[in-house]
Amino acid sequence: MAPQLDGYFKQVDASADDFVARLRKAVAIPSISAEDARRPDVVRMGKWLADELKGLGADVELRQLGKQPHKEHLDLPPVILARYGNDKKKRTILVYGHYDVQPAEKSDGWATEPFEMTVDGKGRMFGRGSTDDKGPVLGWLNAIDAHKKAKVEFPVNLLMCFEGMEEYGSEGLDDLIYKEAKGYFADADAVCISDNYWLGTQRPCLTYGLRGCNYYSLEVWGPGADLHSGVFGGTVQEPMTDLVRILGSLVDTNGKIQIPGIMEQVALVTQDEDGLYDGISFTMDDLYESLGSKTSIYEDKKATLMARWRYPSLSIHGVEGSFSSPGAKTVIPAKVIGKFSIRTVPDMETDKTNECVYKYVKEQFAKLKSKNTIKVYAQHTGNWWAASPKHWNFAAAAKATQRVWGVEPDFTREGGSIPVTLTFEQATGKNVLLLPMGSSTDGAHSINEKLDKRNYIEGIKLLGAYLHYVAEEPQT
Amino acid sequence: MAPQLDGYFKQVDASADDFVARLRKAVAIPSISAEDARRPDVVRMGKWLADELKGLGADVELRQLGKQPHKEHLDLPPVILARYGNDKKKRTILVYGHYDVQPAEKSDGWATEPFEMTVDGKGRMFGRGSTDDKGPVLGWLNAIDAHKKAKVEFPVNLLMCFEGMEEYGSEGLDDLIYKEAKGYFADADAVCISDNYWLGTQRPCLTYGLRGCNYYSLEVWGPGADLHSGVFGGTVQEPMTDLVRILGSLVDTNGKIQIPGIMEQVALVTQDEDGLYDGISFTMDDLYESLGSKTSIYEDKKATLMARWRYPSLSIHGVEGSFSSPGAKTVIPAKVIGKFSIRTVPDMETDKTNECVYKYVKEQFAKLKSKNTIKVYAQHTGNWWAASPKHWNFAAAAKATQRVWGVEPDFTREGGSIPVTLTFEQATGKNVLLLPMGSSTDGAHSINEKLDKRNYIEGIKLLGAYLHYVAEEPQT
Repeated sequence: MAPQLDGYFKQVDASADDFVARLRKAVAIPSISAEDARRPDVVRMGKWLADELKGLGADVELRQLGKQPHKEHLDLPPVILARYGNDKKKRTILVYGHYDVQPAEKSDGWATEPFEMTVDGKGRMFGRGSTDDKGPVLGWLNAIDAHKKAKVEFPVNLLMCFEGMEEYGSEGLDDLIYKEAKGYFADADAVCISDNYWLGTQRPCLTYGLRGCNYYSLEVWGPGADLHSGVFGGTVQEPMTDLVRILGSLVDTNGKIQIPGIMEQVALVTQDEDGLYDGISFTMDDLYESLGSKTSIYEDKKATLMARWRYPSLSIHGVEGSFSSPGAKTVIPAKVIGKFSIRTVPDMETDKTNECVYKYVKEQFAKLKSKNTIKVYAQHTGNWWAASPKHWNFAAAAKATQRVWGVEPDFTREGGSIPVTLTFEQATGKNVLLLPMGSSTDGAHSINEKLDKRNYIEGIKLLGAYLHYVAEEPQT
Repeated sequence: MAPQLDGYFKQVDASADDFVARLRKAVAIPSISAEDARRPDVVRMGKWLADELKGLGADVELRQLGKQPHKEHLDLPPVILARYGNDKKKRTILVYGHYDVQPAEKSDGWATEPFEMTVDGKGRMFGRGSTDDKGPVLGWLNAIDAHKKAKVEFPVNLLMCFEGMEEYGSEGLDDLIYKEAKGYFADADAVCISDNYWLGTQRPCLTYGLRGCNYYSLEVWGPGADLHSGVFGGTVQEPMTDLVRILGSLVDTNGKIQIPGIMEQVALVTQDEDGLYDGISFTMDDLYESLGSKTSIYEDKKATLMARWRYPSLSIHGVEGSFSSPGAKTVIPAKVIGKFSIRTVPDMETDKTNECVYKYVKEQFAKLKSKNTIKVYAQHTGNWWAASPKHWNFAAAAKATQRVWGVEPDFTREGGSIPVTLTFEQATGKNVLLLPMGSSTDGAHSINEKLDKRNYIEGIKLLGAYLHYVAEEPQT
């Protein structure tokens, strides 16, 4: 039966100004993890967050992760581990978020000071970190706060893991998660991450899948040093000629991957899944607006969503070592490195995919009968993630969405990767839910990042309601 | 009949130390035209050169060229125009050289201070500008000097044109040459430029041809801004995919240009020309040493020299707008610009070649059936140059070479362009001879640039002897 949430919701509305003020304080700390000089601000942000949690009655630990790899003069900011409630009769939910932010300067083109949160007439709260990810992180704190103020019993035990390096590769976090899976996180019955976005601006969503990414370098070299094309053009086999020929053989204009053995690994569309796409709140105009053009591969929504979520794609990102500046330079580059990546999906295997790529690239190169030398390798690989949206964790979130927003959520995947998702799943063995607060127009990594006040306040209600439904949901 | 040169030669040997000292003074002035902060040194070098010329009795003008285009805060350095001798009964030879140099810092890897000329045990005179082009420019001054000291009558009237912007695009020079063709240069019977190099290290050469260069940009764009490959990979037609496919269709690994209408324009090899290559002092090992590898297209000297001198070549220089740094970035570039160029040869026409390129590129793009947009255009074009090596100007230089070096010179072309050569030919309508002083190992634009003392001193004899043979040579 549906939990009694009215008292909680009323309190969230009554505390709305306080919650906005709390976010304003958080935005005011420029916790930019990518800038060495801002490291003290990142640490300050972590301590502020820990103090807020302590003030709410949580048990808090600041976990030091040591020195930053390759920047040994810098200490990594602490991971904030916190527990609120320790009742063996309740379910325990582990939530993750991050308190660091992307770089921002007013001069980048911001309309307002990025670290002074500014609310406009439409309730848009502009400021770096507002939606990514300080708003959602404070969402959990505000949910605790409102329960206390409304004297509503908190329905679960909450474990929290808030890191300060997400925007710079989550340095050190994976080790901690694996270590604490049987330690600090041992009680967790499920995981919830609020660090992504609605597919559009109207319909809330629950996210159950992410593509992986295998990123490749293809090096081609011959001459001992760069050559002048006037002196040597026509007499030497040019690495750049070989490179563009191989890169040109990887994928066609319509995104069809030419490498045998890739598509063969992709899971077939089930009837269940096939029905999912039609109802999704997404239009081709949404895509065209995001692209800033109509140069899409497909003309219809379903094919587009499937291409983004459940099929692999291959993108050529660039060439290192060639002439890349404006103007003209008559160089024959001695060594060039093509960069491309494949977005992976169920049931592709990383090693098998790599082998298919290596074999194909070597075959294409052999066809050229070139005297140059190549080397192809994966710079990094990250597996895809796909959770079961039928798990009680998702069922609870769907009911909470219906209760707060009055609509069924879209069940979505994302084309990009959020590596920590997979880490939590693999380390804890528990279901992981992505429960976004912000919408597609928030501009997480752009200038004028914002979070709509409505998404923030209703989002706080949603996070709290989710925990109540989690407490009631039968085991699946 | 052969002119009496013994007195002149003896004097050059006797003055060798003075001539080396003169070059040391010139090298000591860091006249780097590409560096704004060095502009006063470039001007100082021009004035020093003008003073030296005046000291030798030449009439000298410093021609101001106004402000530097796109750098209006900088005055262009003066062009030094000078005349030595004004005897209507003598032939008049116009010589060109430049007194500016490439950038150089000890920290670039120089073994010695680049602006302190250092002579080693093998007589190698190390210093920036030693061979390019201060040594050859002073060669003309030293030739005058030695004639005066030896009291040998100077055999011709000498017109000199020495510029200070050669290493930065010869800004302003073309206009001056065209303007003075019927003015300061009106008397010239032929032109001689000493600003290139022997093909190897042993055999002197006379150069009668240069390839031209048409440099193309191929722009491909679609999305309004760079996209994230996770979010959009598979749903959008990627400009980089189209670009590498088109670039990959231009030329093959063995340098065969795939664009119809290019090779069809190339002049056929005549029997005369065919016989030229075998005797040239050049080996495949010379090529391998220059390449730093054995990745040559051809296995034999003749095919290699023909590919370098008399056939067109197509090189792909790079891609602007794609990810070109080390590491990994999962970007779908919104707009990419491929850069490639074609080295042109007799009898290719610039406009016709451009049309062939544009047509082919558009055809290749049409085959892709892409929604992206392309633009292909020539960034700049420079025509090939081919003089008649049978002209008296070359005949005189060949006899002088035989006299000084005791060998027949190689008659060579160069694969690269020296645009001023064509300008002098077109503006004056006179035969132009390239008469190099240095050798292939001088490293003109590299660290540890040097000029062998032997090449410098024998080169001074050669320049003087050339002028004597010019005076005797019958009209051709």
